Order: sequence, then structure tokens, then C-alpha cells
Amino acid sequence: MTETGVAGRRRRGRERGAGANRSRLPDQRPFAQPRMRYQPTEVVSADELESIHQASLRILAEIGMNFLDQEARELLAAAGADVEPGAERVRFDPAMITERICTCPSEFLLHSWNPAHTLTIGGDHLAFGSVGSPPNIVGLDGVRRPGDREAFRDLLKLCQTFNCVHFIGGYPVEPIDLHWSVRHLEAALDVLTFTDKVPHSYSLGRQRNRDVLEMTRIARQVDEETLQREPSVFTVVNSSSPLRLDAPMLQGIIEFSSRNQVVVMTPFTLSGAMAPVTLAGAVAQQNAEALAGMAFTQVVRPGAPVIYGGFTSNVDMQSGAPAFGTPEYVRTAMLGGQLARRYAVPYRSSNVSAANALDAQAAYESVFSLWGAIMGGVNFLMHGAGWMEGGLHASAAKLVLDADLLGMVEAFLDPIVVDEDTLAVDAIREVGPGGHFFGVAHTQARFRTAFHRPMISDWRNYETWAEAGRPESAARAAQLAGAFLDAYEPPAMEAAVREELDTFVARRVADGGVPTDF
Amino acid sequence: MTETGVAGRRRRGRERGAGANRSRLPDQRPFAQPRMRYQPTEVVSADELESIHQASLRILAEIGMNFLDQEARELLAAAGADVEPGAERVRFDPAMITERICTCPSEFLLHSWNPAHTLTIGGDHLAFGSVGSPPNIVGLDGVRRPGDREAFRDLLKLCQTFNCVHFIGGYPVEPIDLHWSVRHLEAALDVLTFTDKVPHSYSLGRQRNRDVLEMTRIARQVDEETLQREPSVFTVVNSSSPLRLDAPMLQGIIEFSSRNQVVVMTPFTLSGAMAPVTLAGAVAQQNAEALAGMAFTQVVRPGAPVIYGGFTSNVDMQSGAPAFGTPEYVRTAMLGGQLARRYAVPYRSSNVSAANALDAQAAYESVFSLWGAIMGGVNFLMHGAGWMEGGLHASAAKLVLDADLLGMVEAFLDPIVVDEDTLAVDAIREVGPGGHFFGVAHTQARFRTAFHRPMISDWRNYETWAEAGRPESAARAAQLAGAFLDAYEPPAMEAAVREELDTFVARRVADGGVPTDF
Repeated sequence: MTETGVAGRRRRGRERGAGANRSRLPDQRPFAQPRMRYQPTEVVSADELESIHQASLRILAEIGMNFLDQEARELLAAAGADVEPGAERVRFDPAMITERICTCPSEFLLHSWNPAHTLTIGGDHLAFGSVGSPPNIVGLDGVRRPGDREAFRDLLKLCQTFNCVHFIGGYPVEPIDLHWSVRHLEAALDVLTFTDKVPHSYSLGRQRNRDVLEMTRIARQVDEETLQREPSVFTVVNSSSPLRLDAPMLQGIIEFSSRNQVVVMTPFTLSGAMAPVTLAGAVAQQNAEALAGMAFTQVVRPGAPVIYGGFTSNVDMQSGAPAFGTPEYVRTAMLGGQLARRYAVPYRSSNVSAANALDAQAAYESVFSLWGAIMGGVNFLMHGAGWMEGGLHASAAKLVLDADLLGMVEAFLDPIVVDEDTLAVDAIREVGPGGHFFGVAHTQARFRTAFHRPMISDWRNYETWAEAGRPESAARAAQLAGAFLDAYEPPAMEAAVREELDTFVARRVADGGVPTDF
Repeated sequence: MTETGVAGRRRRGRERGAGANRSRLPDQRPFAQPRMRYQPTEVVSADELESIHQASLRILAEIGMNFLDQEARELLAAAGADVEPGAERVRFDPAMITERICTCPSEFLLHSWNPAHTLTIGGDHLAFGSVGSPPNIVGLDGVRRPGDREAFRDLLKLCQTFNCVHFIGGYPVEPIDLHWSVRHLEAALDVLTFTDKVPHSYSLGRQRNRDVLEMTRIARQVDEETLQREPSVFTVVNSSSPLRLDAPMLQGIIEFSSRNQVVVMTPFTLSGAMAPVTLAGAVAQQNAEALAGMAFTQVVRPGAPVIYGGFTSNVDMQSGAPAFGTPEYVRTAMLGGQLARRYAVPYRSSNVSAANALDAQAAYESVFSLWGAIMGGVNFLMHGAGWMEGGLHASAAKLVLDADLLGMVEAFLDPIVVDEDTLAVDAIREVGPGGHFFGVAHTQARFRTAFHRPMISDWRNYETWAEAGRPESAARAAQLAGAFLDAYEPPAMEAAVREELDTFVARRVADGGVPTDF
């Protein structure tokens, strides 16, 4: 099959055909959105939260933001914002912000063409997405190279494989061998046919958003009215911090919000670089940018679904390098969740790491960032599986390791059942002091499913493990990635739908796609 | 200096003398106990917690526990427990348990011979300890071998070095080259002279506890009355689950509680093996054993300091291997904290991993277990640094990696300061849309200390990292362990005190120590 892709050259000659190895693969939990069972962690007091909110409103009223799109400024001026004549600066009366964001829905459905994968966004529901947008791929051969369509497709196969990946968080790696003018068409075709999970659309000009929306509509086989009633695709809108929203992002909001699709409004506020060096200030700025973007979505269409994105981290002040999964990151992830709950909108956070290798650092930065996200009350987890090197490369092995971490997080969110049966006083009586529980009926009836079984964790005793060649997690993850790829099966899309998608893409490609305008 | 120790043979010929390299070592946060700033996570409801409490009381009333020591049974009978005549079984009226544990202190000081390292145990205070008790050591050469005094001393040096290690959690590796009869004397001498942090005493017969208490008294240069007013050493009491307390442990309680020293009452309840396969049942049993042990400390001496230890994990039901840092472990760690808070006693948890190698698994299991401990409201963290392979080996490199994780946890527990200055609205105004924060005065005044700097995390860009030979975290940790060892400086104990300790040990060794009676 593939000689490039994520496998490098290792898989040549050992293809066995789809599904051949599935029986030897680790079991997975079924596809299901976990629920947040616990109280999210609050890292500041209610008063402090209010101070941050008020600081954000002051920033928007006194300093304002630059909106780099004429149409957006006109819409905002008509809605009562203070638009500087002949300039990009827009200032907002605090009442305008607080009134506008009241129409943001607290919870909504995000539909997939496979209805079994339709997601509830908001409330105590969680959804985990795959890595999005790295320019490079590290394959199973350990080599780092620019992303291409083969690697892109292999990562999509893994995203489809893992039940804990609930949506596709953008291009899992940039397929740079696809020409800019048609990349969004070919890439969306792959996303919609290699997976049956909710897709993402990059806001890189309105025509691209329109094309992906149309393809999503075809995949779902619904009309425009239904599509607008049922959000089916999302776009991430990053502000160009500090305090700017550029034209493609604003056009993305206009296109998506006007058609009731999902905007994930995410300032990327690196404390010490694009935001103040103090965490409270960095988050006040993040919050100002998020509030302005959220308010704009509601100006475009009241009630349009929008997600509050928090992505404040810090830089290494010696080198300027961005850092992820740090103590600063964990706390700002939790603080972002507090703000999103204050505004009663769903919250987006991420599973991130700055590590170059799939070593202990990659794991501890990821688990720390999950700690911040999960205990911060995340609803929509971007980059859930596969993100490395601060987003500069995707890794197939990391994707598998992250899927294992996400599975463990799902199991952590399972409630501890407390009832007469689970309290097991009779089993404890039966075993008595000094006995062993393995043989009793209470254990025998439950032992197969009692505990979560991770895919990668190696619990063999030291001697057995040493005799097996001392395998480490990274090698086990890479091996599993290859096995899951071999066993991949595409989702069952009807032939007529596939044909309609192919025809659409062929026509738009023949038309030249979108002229490369930036 | 050492050719064995943790370094294997790598350090031969490159000794530079104590302190030579300190200037090149990473900075550390100062020695300070972090405080729990956030609400601990509650994994069950108040009603469910009450059900577990009631189940534990039923277990103690209806089934009872075996107390394998005559003196303990006599003390319990005199205090009103139902002791089966001529047998080991002791049953407890629920009212006896609930009344007895009322005298457990909620908070107390644990004194060190260096007053700067005296700890507050309980409330919102946290204290982190080093690994205790593994039989094997994996040195910086990666070789696993039985522990010896050289490795023991090297690990003590690292424990003394790291400010985030607040107490010594037992022998960091078992020094098996010290004869059983005198091991506790020689080992305690090393703990008290290589470090100036709170020591631990193994409950392996009353004479050993007495010797270590006497050495602690000498190190602190206080009289017996002061020692009894000021707890200065702790012992971990593990029940032999299910539902047994053996003679050395009970004698440890009698010796320590009667002299007002600290008992850490920790059932080791592996769900599916020594405890029910259901988590609620495993914790109900843990709680019954903990309550019985805690009540016994208060029978021995009302008001004696005791810590509630939670150590419920699960086994791999396929192989029987114990697992750590699992989703089950995280939830039971949090549930143990809920129970300890219900009884208003300090809570002990652990930083654990089953991994054989210092790979991603070692890191994710450790961070997951820290997640459970910290968000569970831990006060006293055992095995904070250096525990691997389910406790079967200590690792110098893991000790450094864990010290890095603990430093990050301390930084996570730093409050986000929210005030006019940190909200930085004026700095945001000064920078304006599209600017950069690095040059502004607000950043320049703070950048050196703004963010926590981990020791191991490698944030260099990929190319620079690749040119440096693609170092991974485990190698960096091992390298730092060697550098910190080279720079070790012993604490400044007065010569007369040292002499008094040496004299005591020499006399007790000449007496034959403690005859090996088990």
C-alpha cells in the first residue's frame, strides 16, 4: 500500500489487507462522549474572576481591537460598536459585549455524517479531537519530514480507528504536496471519506469555507436549511494577538456564523511575547479577544454556536521558545474554563507538548495539559492526539500514545459506583482476614471488565521485560500504530454519496479551486 | 569517591570535590511547603461517602480484624473492643471507632534537626517525601542490581539536594550489604548525617523503633519530654490486607504513639487481589483497616499524631501484576482524600509507577498519580521522587525527573496573582494591537522570575536538538543526577552531635544491634 505515509519504508512487503490483524489489536472502549463527573477546579476566586472580566471589558472599551476586514467593521458599526473612521480600530461599550454574548448557546449538537458520531458540545459533555495543522510528520521510522497526503491519510486512518478521537481537529498534518488552490478540496474529501467524524474547515478565505461546507452538506445528504439548523462543521478562529483579528478569520466568522456553523474563538496568547508576562494580564487579554470574537459571531447571527477557546501558555524567557504543559499552562487552562463557565459557553482547551521526542517530557507535558483541560472543565479538546514539538510536527506514535492517555482520562471520568453490591461487605466476609479475593464469586463475576486496560503500559515483571529486549513506550506506540494502520477499515459511505462528493471535487478542481490569493 | 553507588563505574576519575559544579546546576525553588490553593476533587457524593464509611464500620463490627500481637489485643480489650478469647480476631463497636478517632489531631508539626526543615502536616499544607524501600537500584549506567549502602547514600545525597523533597520516606533503596541486626543503626546514621530532613523509622520490632527514636533525639539535641511534645520521626504502618495487622506493625504503633511520634496508617489494598475487585469495596476495606489502626493509635495515646494513608490500586487481571497511576488509582487516591477530610486527619498518598524504564509510561503514570494525590488533597506524599517498577527498584534518574515534576506541582500551586499590576491593562495599552510585549517595562521588570523553569524539559528547536544528538529526558535526568551528586554538600551538623551519634551507633553495634528475630 504505502511506502511513504507515516510508515516511511518499514511497511513495504508486509501488507496483509484491511482488517487482517484486528483480532490481535488491543480492545478499546466504545465511542462515547465522557461526562465531567467532578467539580472543575477554580484557580481564582469569584472576585478575582470578576476583576479579570472587568479588565477585559476595559481593554475592549479603552484600547479596542483591530478588525482587518471592511465588512466586519461595517457589521460591528451597525451593531453599535465604535469604529474609528478610516481605520481598523474597533472599540466596544461594555454593555454591548455583555448583551451580545447572552445569545451564545450553552450547549448544542455538532452533527456528523455518521449520526452515531454526532456530538453534544457544552454542559458536562466532553469531546476529544485529533491533532491539527503541524507542517511536519515524524513517521514510524522516526524520521521528521514535511507532511504529505500519504502521511495525512495515514493519520486520518488512525483518527478513524480510535474511539476516543471524537472529531477531526483540522489537517492532522499539512499535505503540502496538494496545491494551495485545491488543497482544501482534496483534503476535505479525504477527511469525509477516510473518517465519519465531525470535520473542521480552515478559515482561509470565504470560498474555502463554502466549499468545505458544501462537501459536508453532501456527505450528510441534507439540504441547506437542515445544515443551518444542524451545525455540522467547525472552524477555529485565532486572533493575531495582541488584539487583532485578520481578514480570513473574520470572513470565516461571517461565513460560518451566518450559516449557524461552529466557531471556536481561540486567542493564542503566549505570555511574555504576544501577551503580558503576568498570567492575569495574559488571560485578561485572551478574554478580551475571545469576548470580541464571540460578540462578533452573535452580531452576525444571534444564537450562532461558538466555543470559548483558551490557549494561553508561556515562553521560555531565555530563548523565546514557546512552552507547553507547564505549570503556567495548567493554571491558565483552568482559568479559561472558569471564564467560559461565567459566560455559559462551551470551553475549548488542548493536549499539548513542546517535546521533540516521544520521551518522558512528551508524556508529562501532555498529562499536565490534560490535567489543566479536564479539571478546567473542557468541553472541546483540540490536539487531543498526535501533537508534538509545540505543533511543529505530528507523530503517529504520539497519536497512539495520546489515544491511550485519552482512554485513561475517559476511564477516570467513569463514576465509582457505590451500592451494596460494589461495597462488597459479603465478599470481604467470605474472604476474611488474610485471604485472597481472586477466587471468590464476587471477583470472578467481574474481573474481565473491572479495570481499564491501557494499550501501551508494560506491566510485565522486570526479568520478562528485559528478556523481551527492554521495549520502551515509544517503540510500543509505533508498533501499535503500524498494526492499527494495517487493520484500518474505511467507514461505510454510500457509493452514491461518494460519487457526489467526487463529482463536486472534480468540478471545483477543474474550475481551478480557489486562486491562491494570499 | 564512589565506584558503585548509583553511578556504576561512570564517575571514576572525574570527581571534582564537593560543590565544584554548583554554579552550573539548574536553579531550584527554595525549600517551602506548598499549600493547597484549590478545592480538592470529590469523586463520590456526600451520601456515597457516608455509605462507604458505614460499610467500613460494618466490616469492623461484623467481621473484625486480626491483631497479631497480644499486648495490642489487651489494650484494645481494655478500651472496650470485642476481643475473641484465645484468638486474634478483634471486633469494634461503631461508636468506639468514631469516638476514638475524634482525638486524632488535624494538624501538627513534624520536627527536623534542622529547624528550617520542620514540617506542618495537615490542613492545606503539603509535604513531599523521597522514595522508600525498593530492594533494587537502577544506577546512572542503567544497570539494575540489589541496593547497597553506596547507592543508598547517593540517593540520600540527591534527596538532600532537592528542595522539593521535604522528608526522607524510608530507605531510598535497601542497603542489603548492611547486616540485618545493625542495618537500622547504620542507615539511620546516614539519613541523619547525609540529610537534615525529617526521617522515617521502619516498624520491624520495638527495639529498632527505639534506637531510631533515640538517634533522632540526639540529632535534635532535645530531651525525651521535648521529643514527646514535638513529633520528630514517622513510621509507616501497613496492614497485611485483608484485615490483619501484624506484630511488628502493632508494636510500632505502641512504641510510636505512646511517645507521640507520627504513625502513617496505610492499608495496601490491591483491588482484585487483597481487596474486592470493585473500587467502592476496595476503599471500604482500606477505610476499615485505616480506621482500626487510627483508633488503636488513640487507644495507645489520645491525641497521638496519625496520618490516614490511602494506597488502593488495581491489579492487571490477566497477569496479576500490580498496576499504578491507572484511572482506578487516580480515583481511589481522590476518594481516600475525601475520607481523610471526613475524619479531619492529614492524608497520605504516593507518586507511583509500574514502569521498568524511564520512558513515557514512567512519566504518565507518575503524573496521573500526582493528579490523584494533589487534587485529592494530599498532605503527605510518599515515594515522591525515585519510585519505579511498582516499588521494586529505585532510580537516581527518576528521582531527578520526579523532583522536576514536584517542582512543577509546586509552581502549579502558586496562586495566580490578580491585581491592577498583574492585569496589566496599561502594558496592553502601551503595546497595542499587533505589538510585542518583550520590550516593555512591565515585561522587563518581571521576565527573569515570571515563569517556572523545569530542569529537564528540552525546549530547543528541533534542528538544534537534533544536532545535539537528540537527547531524551531519561539521559538528561541521569546527567543531572551525576552533576548534582558531584556538587553535594552535607548538612552542617555540629561535630559534638555527630560524635554523640557515632558513639551511640558504635555502642549499639558492639552490643550486636538487634538479634535477627524474624
